Amino acid sequence: MKQGKAVVLLSGGLDSATCLGIARRDGFACYALSFNYGQRHNCELDAARAIAQNIGVAEHVTANIDLRLWGGSALTDDIRVPNAGTADSIPVTYVPARNLIFLAFAASWAEAIGTTNIFIGVNSLDYSGYPDCRPQFITAFQQCITCGTRAGNEGQQWHIHTPLQHLSKAEIITAGLQIGVNYSLTHSCYNPTPAGIACGKCDSCSLRLKGFKEAGIVDPIRYII
Amino acid sequence: MKQGKAVVLLSGGLDSATCLGIARRDGFACYALSFNYGQRHNCELDAARAIAQNIGVAEHVTANIDLRLWGGSALTDDIRVPNAGTADSIPVTYVPARNLIFLAFAASWAEAIGTTNIFIGVNSLDYSGYPDCRPQFITAFQQCITCGTRAGNEGQQWHIHTPLQHLSKAEIITAGLQIGVNYSLTHSCYNPTPAGIACGKCDSCSLRLKGFKEAGIVDPIRYII
Repeated sequence: MKQGKAVVLLSGGLDSATCLGIARRDGFACYALSFNYGQRHNCELDAARAIAQNIGVAEHVTANIDLRLWGGSALTDDIRVPNAGTADSIPVTYVPARNLIFLAFAASWAEAIGTTNIFIGVNSLDYSGYPDCRPQFITAFQQCITCGTRAGNEGQQWHIHTPLQHLSKAEIITAGLQIGVNYSLTHSCYNPTPAGIACGKCDSCSLRLKGFKEAGIVDPIRYII
Repeated sequence: MKQGKAVVLLSGGLDSATCLGIARRDGFACYALSFNYGQRHNCELDAARAIAQNIGVAEHVTANIDLRLWGGSALTDDIRVPNAGTADSIPVTYVPARNLIFLAFAASWAEAIGTTNIFIGVNSLDYSGYPDCRPQFITAFQQCITCGTRAGNEGQQWHIHTPLQHLSKAEIITAGLQIGVNYSLTHSCYNPTPAGIACGKCDSCSLRLKGFKEAGIVDPIRYII
C-alpha cells in the first residue's frame, strides 16, 4: 500500500535499520537521514549508506552538525566509553539533546518535501536509559512541532512513528529478519577498533548481543572478543 | 545580581541583540549561539560577532548546519524574497523548523555547560507570522526538553526566556537603547546587497523601519533606498 513520503532517521545501527525496513514494508517512500555529529564511532555512517542502498530509499542525506563544539558526552569527547551495566542513571554516553536535534532536522526536511511522517527507531525496553528515547519525549516533540511548523498550523497532523518503542531487542531482530533486514550491514558499537570492529563490551554491543542470544540467532557481525 | 549561565540565540538582528542585552543586564553569563545555516544574508554573522563583543559574552559559538540540504525557503534557496505586506499566511521566507533546530542546539549546549536557561528573542506582535515565534510553541518546546534531557529528568526546571514575546518593535528598540544596545551593529535585512546594505523593502526591513519610526528614533544603519 502506498503511503507517501516519510523521513527516517538512520544511524546505521540495528534499531534504525529495522525501523527503515518497517517504513519500507509499510509502503513509505523513505528519505533516510544520517548525521555526522563528530561521533567517534563514525564508521556507523558507512553502515548507514550500505543499509539505505540495501533496503532502498528515495534519498539518503548525511547532515554535518558538529556536536563536538561543546561536547559533554563520551561519544564525542575524549572520555572513556564504559563497559555495559555499570550505571543506574543516564550514562556518560548520553549526548545532550541528540534525538531532539535529529528530530528537529527530520521535521525540517519533512516540511521541505511535504510530508508529516517521521520514523525513529527509539526503544525504551532494551536501551541505555537515555531520556530522549522514551514515549513521553516523543509525544511532547509531536506536540511541539504541531505548534511550531507551517504544516501543523495548517491543520495537518504530524506522525512520529516509533515502531520499536516497546519491543525487546530480540523482538526487534526477529521482526527485522522477517522483512529481510541484513544485520551484517549494521554497526552498533560505541567503541570500535579503527577498522570498525565492534568491542563487544560497551552498552550498545551488550544489548545487541543479548538480543541475538534471546532471539536464538547468531549475530552476523565481527567482534574483537 | 549574578544569575549563572545562559545560552542566548544570537542571529545578529535587532531582536536577538536586544535579547542578549537583557540577559546581560539581568546578570547572566551569556553563551551566545549563532548559526551559519546557508542563509543568503549571512552578513548577519558578522553582525552577531560584533554584537557579542560589544555587549560582552562568556563565549560565542557559530555552528555550521547546512539547511540548504533540503531548502524550502526563500532565505536559503534561489527564490525571490518578497517585499513586505504581500501575504496573509506564513511567508516564503519561513525556514522549515528553524527555531526548533536552533533551540535544540541551544538545549544541547546548555546541558553541556550545566545550565537550564535559554534566551530567544522571539516576538509575536511585530513579526512575520512564523509559527515558531509564538508562545504556544515555546511552551511546547520547554515541555519537550523537560521530558527529553538529563537535566529535566533529574528534576531541574528549564527556562526558555522570551523577554520580547509581547513587545512591539518600537518597545523593543526603546528597551534596548535604555540598556545601551548599539543598533548600528545589527543586521536585519533578508535581501541585502553583496556589501551587506539593507534593502529597506523586505518584511524584516519593513518591520524594523516601522519600529524605529514609532519609537521616534532614527535607525542608525544604512539602506539602499
